[in-house]
Amino acid sequence: MSLLGAIEAGGTKFILAVCDEDFKIIDRTVLKTEDGPATLAKVTVYFDRFPDIAAVGVAAFGPIDLNPQSTSYGYVLDTPKAGWANFDFLGYLKKWRDIPYYWTTDVNGSAWAEYRHGANSEVKSLLYLTVGTGVGAGIIVNGQLLSGFGHPEAGHIMIQKNPEDHYAGHCPFHQDRCLEGLASGPAMEDRWGLSAKELVDDHPAWRIEADYLAQAAMTYTTILRPDRIVFGGGVNHREVLLPLVRKRFSELMAGYLATPNVDDYLVPVANGDDAGILGCFYLAKSALTRA
Amino acid sequence: MSLLGAIEAGGTKFILAVCDEDFKIIDRTVLKTEDGPATLAKVTVYFDRFPDIAAVGVAAFGPIDLNPQSTSYGYVLDTPKAGWANFDFLGYLKKWRDIPYYWTTDVNGSAWAEYRHGANSEVKSLLYLTVGTGVGAGIIVNGQLLSGFGHPEAGHIMIQKNPEDHYAGHCPFHQDRCLEGLASGPAMEDRWGLSAKELVDDHPAWRIEADYLAQAAMTYTTILRPDRIVFGGGVNHREVLLPLVRKRFSELMAGYLATPNVDDYLVPVANGDDAGILGCFYLAKSALTRA
Repeated sequence: MSLLGAIEAGGTKFILAVCDEDFKIIDRTVLKTEDGPATLAKVTVYFDRFPDIAAVGVAAFGPIDLNPQSTSYGYVLDTPKAGWANFDFLGYLKKWRDIPYYWTTDVNGSAWAEYRHGANSEVKSLLYLTVGTGVGAGIIVNGQLLSGFGHPEAGHIMIQKNPEDHYAGHCPFHQDRCLEGLASGPAMEDRWGLSAKELVDDHPAWRIEADYLAQAAMTYTTILRPDRIVFGGGVNHREVLLPLVRKRFSELMAGYLATPNVDDYLVPVANGDDAGILGCFYLAKSALTRA
Repeated sequence: MSLLGAIEAGGTKFILAVCDEDFKIIDRTVLKTEDGPATLAKVTVYFDRFPDIAAVGVAAFGPIDLNPQSTSYGYVLDTPKAGWANFDFLGYLKKWRDIPYYWTTDVNGSAWAEYRHGANSEVKSLLYLTVGTGVGAGIIVNGQLLSGFGHPEAGHIMIQKNPEDHYAGHCPFHQDRCLEGLASGPAMEDRWGLSAKELVDDHPAWRIEADYLAQAAMTYTTILRPDRIVFGGGVNHREVLLPLVRKRFSELMAGYLATPNVDDYLVPVANGDDAGILGCFYLAKSALTRA
């Protein structure tokens, strides 16, 4: 029986897992993220226990090089994280075992899991928006993960500052100009002195956050015309938020463009915390199929 | 010898043309746009002169239905233009002559012409941004025109108002919130009392316009990561503008993401006024190939 492997490579922890042909998880573990070589050494020791793994899906924190034509394809690119900049992540794995790998970003992994989930099976194009420590999007167009000169960093789109918001912004590059600078978890905590978990449901924070996410949804909609936008990540876990986003999105769009019904269009994640791992399994399977 | 037809269907005029197998234009004409049935009757009378036309590319003003699964595929959708709303444009043509058609938006037609042009032949993904009476974008990802629930209306992305700009905005839906509301030709003329053609090179209008187009380029870049953004349309014809856009784009991005060198990345159109017609020919050819 052939198995599939998953590496959900985050900046603070690595989740590793193995599934059978029915995508049933048969084993999993969590490692603390150290530097590149030290972490990958432990990853390969873990997977050595499963000689029947036929392919591995890797969803990695970024920025990473996804361009197969590039000489640094498979590398972690310039990052302040110690021991990771210019590390040949995929090359390390290939030297360990020469099997098919699907190499993509962490947010793409979760996006793919949402896309493959039953709740979204009728959908051809989908944007998965995660709002947590950072803000990012995985984009599927016509059944393929969108990628070009690099992978999307769609948390850094321009948005308009809410008139009630006087926060200076949290993005080290774009301050209060981009979505991540105004709407990430750390931006919320820095602005209000309370984390997204701590803010009560009727706090004005949620109306402002909803304005930003609705603006983002409008920009994604006008450019990509996806069939669905899926909201994930820690901040989106708060149930007070999405109904406010839907309301504000309808106000902002002002009937300009046809979209699916807003309750079917702006939706919460269908997968729980396993989204990243599931996405890796599905992607490992497709790497096996194309190999 | 088989011929190809082109219909560049604008709100004020229709350009019709016929080319040979080498894409050499052998005839062209221009019609004033009347209502749907009256205009299409004249279109078919024109093409009746060319019984050897094997396929036709149609690039139409919108909104139009591009979704082949939709019951109104090939229709002009809800538009204030008299005699066009819910008109079955493509159906009219198919009843006239049952040959392959490529049906798309006017901006997609021009985008495709730019993509197929020699200057962009090494490029896999491209965004063509037209700034004129309206603002719109045609987007090519991995060699295909991007489309989803509908076609992009990427002129209506959110941008931040320039602090020096006190104009109330020209978009009937989004006022001063979206790119089209702040940066279209009519917005410029309404704000300054002078058209884009009349504004002198050192007028502050250009610095503000450049800020808006640079913001748009940043949003397109972070979401799509295209290999190139091509600037077309009447406002972009002014040579003073693009160097200012490049400068402002670099400031706004602040080194956050890798892009091609800005002079190769943000470029003027390679095709002149024939872009729309050329795009129709290329698309007619691909309709013929897939038929």
